[in-house]
Parts: sequence; C-alpha cells; structure tokens
Amino acid sequence: MRELLLLPRGFRTAGTSCGIKDDPAVFDIALFVSDTGSSAAGVFTQNRICGAPVTISRDRVPSSSTRAVVINSGNANACTGDGGLKDARRMTVLAAEQIGCDENDVLVCSTGVIGHALPMEKIEAGIPAVAARLASTPEAFADAARGMMTTDTIHKQSVRQSKINGKTARVSGACKGAAMIGPNMATMLAVVMTDAELTPDDADRMLRHAVNDSFNCISVEGHTSTSDSVILLANGAADTGPLDDNAQNLVQEMIDDVCEALAKAIVRDAEGADHIITIEAVGLRTREEAHIIAKTVANDALVKTAIAGCDPNWGRIVSCCGRTGVELTDSDITLRINSTLIYEKGIPIEYDESALSESTRKNKDVTIELGFPFGSESLRFWTSDLTQEYVRLNSEYTT
Amino acid sequence: MRELLLLPRGFRTAGTSCGIKDDPAVFDIALFVSDTGSSAAGVFTQNRICGAPVTISRDRVPSSSTRAVVINSGNANACTGDGGLKDARRMTVLAAEQIGCDENDVLVCSTGVIGHALPMEKIEAGIPAVAARLASTPEAFADAARGMMTTDTIHKQSVRQSKINGKTARVSGACKGAAMIGPNMATMLAVVMTDAELTPDDADRMLRHAVNDSFNCISVEGHTSTSDSVILLANGAADTGPLDDNAQNLVQEMIDDVCEALAKAIVRDAEGADHIITIEAVGLRTREEAHIIAKTVANDALVKTAIAGCDPNWGRIVSCCGRTGVELTDSDITLRINSTLIYEKGIPIEYDESALSESTRKNKDVTIELGFPFGSESLRFWTSDLTQEYVRLNSEYTT
Repeated sequence: MRELLLLPRGFRTAGTSCGIKDDPAVFDIALFVSDTGSSAAGVFTQNRICGAPVTISRDRVPSSSTRAVVINSGNANACTGDGGLKDARRMTVLAAEQIGCDENDVLVCSTGVIGHALPMEKIEAGIPAVAARLASTPEAFADAARGMMTTDTIHKQSVRQSKINGKTARVSGACKGAAMIGPNMATMLAVVMTDAELTPDDADRMLRHAVNDSFNCISVEGHTSTSDSVILLANGAADTGPLDDNAQNLVQEMIDDVCEALAKAIVRDAEGADHIITIEAVGLRTREEAHIIAKTVANDALVKTAIAGCDPNWGRIVSCCGRTGVELTDSDITLRINSTLIYEKGIPIEYDESALSESTRKNKDVTIELGFPFGSESLRFWTSDLTQEYVRLNSEYTT
Repeated sequence: MRELLLLPRGFRTAGTSCGIKDDPAVFDIALFVSDTGSSAAGVFTQNRICGAPVTISRDRVPSSSTRAVVINSGNANACTGDGGLKDARRMTVLAAEQIGCDENDVLVCSTGVIGHALPMEKIEAGIPAVAARLASTPEAFADAARGMMTTDTIHKQSVRQSKINGKTARVSGACKGAAMIGPNMATMLAVVMTDAELTPDDADRMLRHAVNDSFNCISVEGHTSTSDSVILLANGAADTGPLDDNAQNLVQEMIDDVCEALAKAIVRDAEGADHIITIEAVGLRTREEAHIIAKTVANDALVKTAIAGCDPNWGRIVSCCGRTGVELTDSDITLRINSTLIYEKGIPIEYDESALSESTRKNKDVTIELGFPFGSESLRFWTSDLTQEYVRLNSEYTT
C-alpha cells in the first residue's frame, strides 16, 4: 500500500518477535499506545464462541481513558477456558506496567490457532520488549501492522487527513486477516487511531457507521471468527477542540475511508485469491435485502469458482438471488458483469461470452451488478474468488 | 450400488439419448410411467428463481391420477422466460400422446445449464424414442436413472420391499446430482415409486416426512438450485388394499430408507469429493437448532478443507456452532471426531492428533459428533469435503 503512513499525533506503536511463531524473524506481538487517555470504541465478533481477549476488551469499551491495545499473533487464545481469560487479563497488566497506567485502560486482541493455551513465558518477556521499541515514526507504525499478521502476505495500513478547525487531524488504521482464512488461523483485527477529539459516544457511533459499510461488507468464506475485533482510539491530540456537525462529518468520512481501504486490503490479500469481486446490489426496499443478496452471492462457492475460471456462468448468480428469502421473481432481476448486460428483467440477453471471459482473465477486478425495481436501497460487498490454491492452503496438515 | 434394482409392480421406465448433450452415447432423457393413475406428491426447490418445469409440475400435485414423469438432462430450462414455460408444457403433451393420457397427468423435470432455451426439435423426437423403450425390467430402471444424470459419475437407485397385508409391496427410487454441483449444471432430482396403495394426502405426508430427514439433510456447497424436485408415485399395484397404521408405518419406513440411501449416494458422488462427512448434532432444544448447527458445519469451507487434508483442526467446528445464532456458550459444547473426544464442555482434551489424522486418511467416512446439554432433539446431516478437484471442476471454462 503506497499511502502516507503517518500516525496521528500523540500515538506511538511498535511490533517485534517474541517467539510465539516458529520463525524468529516473523513478528508476533504489537502495541498501540496513546500518550494520553483516549476515547475508545470497539466492535467485536458476533460469534457466541469468542476468544478470551474479546471477552476482556468488550467489557472495557466504550471508554474515555484508554491508553493502549496489545496484540499477539500466532495464537487466538480462543476455546481455552478460564485459563485463557486469566492469560488475556495478564497481557493487559504487563502492558499497563510498561506504559504506567491502569490495566483497565489497556485492550487486548489475539489472533491465530484456536484451542491452545498462550505461551505465557514468551509473552511475559515479549511485552516489555515491544514496549521498548515504541515510537511515533512511520516505521514503528508499519512494525505494529506486521506484528498483527498471521497468514497475511502484506501488512495493511491506511491513513487520511483533513483540516478541522484550522488544525490537521488524521485517521490512521492497521488491520490483518480476513474472516477465518488461515490453515489454523482465526480472525480479522483492526486498530484505527485518530487525533481528532471525539467523545466515547461519538467514537462508538462513528466506528459502527464505518464498520457497517466496510468490514461488515467483506467475506472470504463467510465464517465469522471467534476473535474479530475493530478498535477506534481518539485522543484529541490534533488540538481541534470540540467538533461541530461539519467537522464531525469530515472525521466520519476519514474513518469510513480508512475502514473501507483496510477492508478491501483484506479481501485483496485473501488466501489463494486471484480476483477481487465487487458485488453491487441496487434498487432494493431495505438495506437488509441488499445485504443478504450481495452476501449470498459473495459466499457462493459456485459463483466464486466460476470467477476463478473466468467463466461468465451467470445462472449461478441469478439462482443465488432466489435462495435468499427476499421476495422476488426472475423478471425483477437485471444482471451486469463488468458493465456487460447479461440478463434483463428475467430474459437472457445475447452478449459476447468470449470477450467477457477474456476481460475477466486480464482484469483481476470483477464487478457483478444486480439491479432490482423495488426501491432506492443499495450496497456494495467485496469478496475474493475460490481457487485450488485456497483449498490447498486450508487443507494442509498443520498440527 | 449393489441393491436389488426391481421396479414396483405396474411401473415401466426408460432412458435414452436424444442429442441434448454433445456426446451421443450419453443418455439425456428419461421416462417413468405408471400403468394406471397413481397418487402423486412432489417436494420442490424453495429457490424463488425456479425452473419452468418446477412451475408446471408443482401445479399438478398432489394428484390421484398421475401417469408419468418425463425428465431431460443437459439443460435446466430455468431463467428462460415465457418460452421456457411453453417448452416445459410441450414436453408433458408429447409424453401424454405416447402414453395415451391427459397432459395434466404428466409431470416434468429438467436439469443442466441455466439460462438457455431447450433444443425442442431434439426433444420432439426424443420423447417418442424414449417411450418406445419403456419396460418393467431392472435394465429399464437403470436406463431411466442414467437418463437423469448430469455430472454424476454413477447412476443412483435404491429399493426396499416389505410384506403388507400378505402382499409384497416395494418402494423404488432413482435420483441424480447434489445441490448445484456441476460446472454448468443445476439440481438434484429424485423419483420414488411404490406399488403400495396410498391416497394423495398419504403420499404427500409420507414424502415430506422422508425428505425432511434425507434430501433436506445433505449439501455439497449449500446452494439450493433452481430445479430441485422429489416426486413420489404410488399406484397401488401391489394389491395391498387400504393400509392400517402398522402398514402405513412400514411403507413410511421404506420410503424413508430409500430417500436416505439416495441422498447419501448424492453426497458420495459429489464432485471432487474424497470424504463423506456425517455430522450428528445431539441434545438440542429443537430440531431447527440441531439442523442449523449441523448445516453450518456441513457448509463451512474451513471445516471441509480441513477434512480434505485429514487435519483434525477442531477449532473451526466449535467456531461454527457459535456463528449459528443458537443460544450457547463454549462450555455447552462437547465434540467427538470419529468417536475420539476432542473438546468437552468448553475444555480442550488431550488426544492423539496423528492417530486421528491417520484414521481419517485411511477411512473415507468421517463422523463429527457435537453434543449439547439442552434437550433431546438430534439430527444427522451428510456432506462431502472440499478438495482442489472440486474447485478445478467448477472453475473450468465451459461456455
């Protein structure tokens, strides 16, 4: 990603390796710190089986005094019983000792294999080590993004800035993963930081708005993991003072943009993916209708394998619409793939199949547009195709 | 399948090739005929985008005078507009002319590519040709099963018989496909015939009971097709006379057994499948809870790839339970794979990972048992694993 990778003012970050992963060169621990208490909001997995860190962090937001997020990769600390909760809490104590704050002002995330106890002796040493590397530089921000990675092939960051009340305010985010993509891995995680001044309520509302149109509109294989977490920290260090409606809109827009860029980066880096697929559902009665239609197409193994094979096998897409439960008939559906009209109000249209297939072979971004005559609600959803490489990566024997 | 492949009394069947498929040696048309009017029931796809034959056949059951089912493979006649409805109706007229009955006493099914008009000149010649081959022999029954096939690698039949009121009554069924397994194909179809005497209401009730625990408990990739149809014909030719409760139970049991055998045959023949997976959800409050849990595990790409790789990656299975919406926590879940206890009431159990992996490599039947403490409802669900071969078959460019 070629964006400006600056942190917002008043934030320091770090990443390093503490030995959780086999390869000592690969980072597996990250720390995000605000120099002062920040407003914090979090959005967490809706899976009822959630990792211990989710249980701990969910209790500590929204907050007006959060100082840090500590993250390890390589082990999700999920399905680990009471011992897992103790370990997650201990991670926040260790980070708080380094920063000099209350443990309740530290949030915690873990990502990796499910069902194994954390190697706490490594983490006891790792948290002081990562804290010693804290810095406000672009390098330190990239290091923190690397410390979150599991099977990601690149670290993922996004930054936006705006003038607000005459001051420059910035929103910077980092994330990893996609749904449950890895051989033994779990979870997407994201940390979004801003130096704009937000109340905890503002932070919570803005984060939910952004997540709704970004992380909640992507999928790789549709498996909601045990540990998905998106955290927003706002420390006010840009010195903007309280935000009026216009300024709030500007900040919301930056948070939305950063979340969308991070979400799309996750799909683009999905395991084995060859194409990124954008599904646009247009003209529905409700947002929920648009969401279920786009998501059903996005998660359909037959659609995803057809795109992997550059096969404009559109019957599979139309059939998906019918199995969503949304009230519709075939004559309500109009389908375009990469802007080529394929099916209009229930009637197949003559089109150049080999030209469309060829364009899919050359251009790895595919757009599926499904139009309906019901209303004005629409939604975009992003997913990856389903390749033999995805199956290979996810069926390798790793225990 | 090595069962006795007899038809019930009073039924004749046939299959042949009429040129819908490219290879002239491959059958693509089938006919099932009862010599007298039979009680008929049908269960059809719940996809709102349904093929023209589903629209026609659904209107004609339940019935007390059905004489035949005519089926073509190689083209689903779905998403084909008003022309498709006209073609489906024409197929029943052609079959009725051959049999000498009213067109309303003929049901019709089509399976294959979606969105292309039927090649009616071939079908106009094909229906007389297949009718000329009608016979009551085991060979003719196998031919009819072959005429339904799309990407199936073997034809699928099942037969049961019982003494009822001193007479031998038989239930014989044939089916094809699984959900939407094929490169360009749609649908599972099944025809079940019995010479026991059933009223249309009995036939309808018994078919729904059987389908509920068989075809509704399998999946390959979870895509409900546009054309799924299961049809039961009961012509009373066994001369059993009306059935008392005991006799009804015997017939129900035969229909259940035939449907379960056919449903499992579909999963066993799923494209690219290496393992057949049985998921048992036990101890739930309602059947719906058991169904959603078993189905979510069955359709999960991560579980299916793990089984393909013989990897006892059980965290993926537990995580599935949490994302179903069923009210539960990790301490409610007990998991066994091939009878090996893996996770008990929320606590990982020590077990021999390599022994379990090795047994999965040798034995292609895998059982996942999920136990809950909530109630007495349980359910079995069958699916196949997800292999690189499945992706290859479904991403091949076929247009």
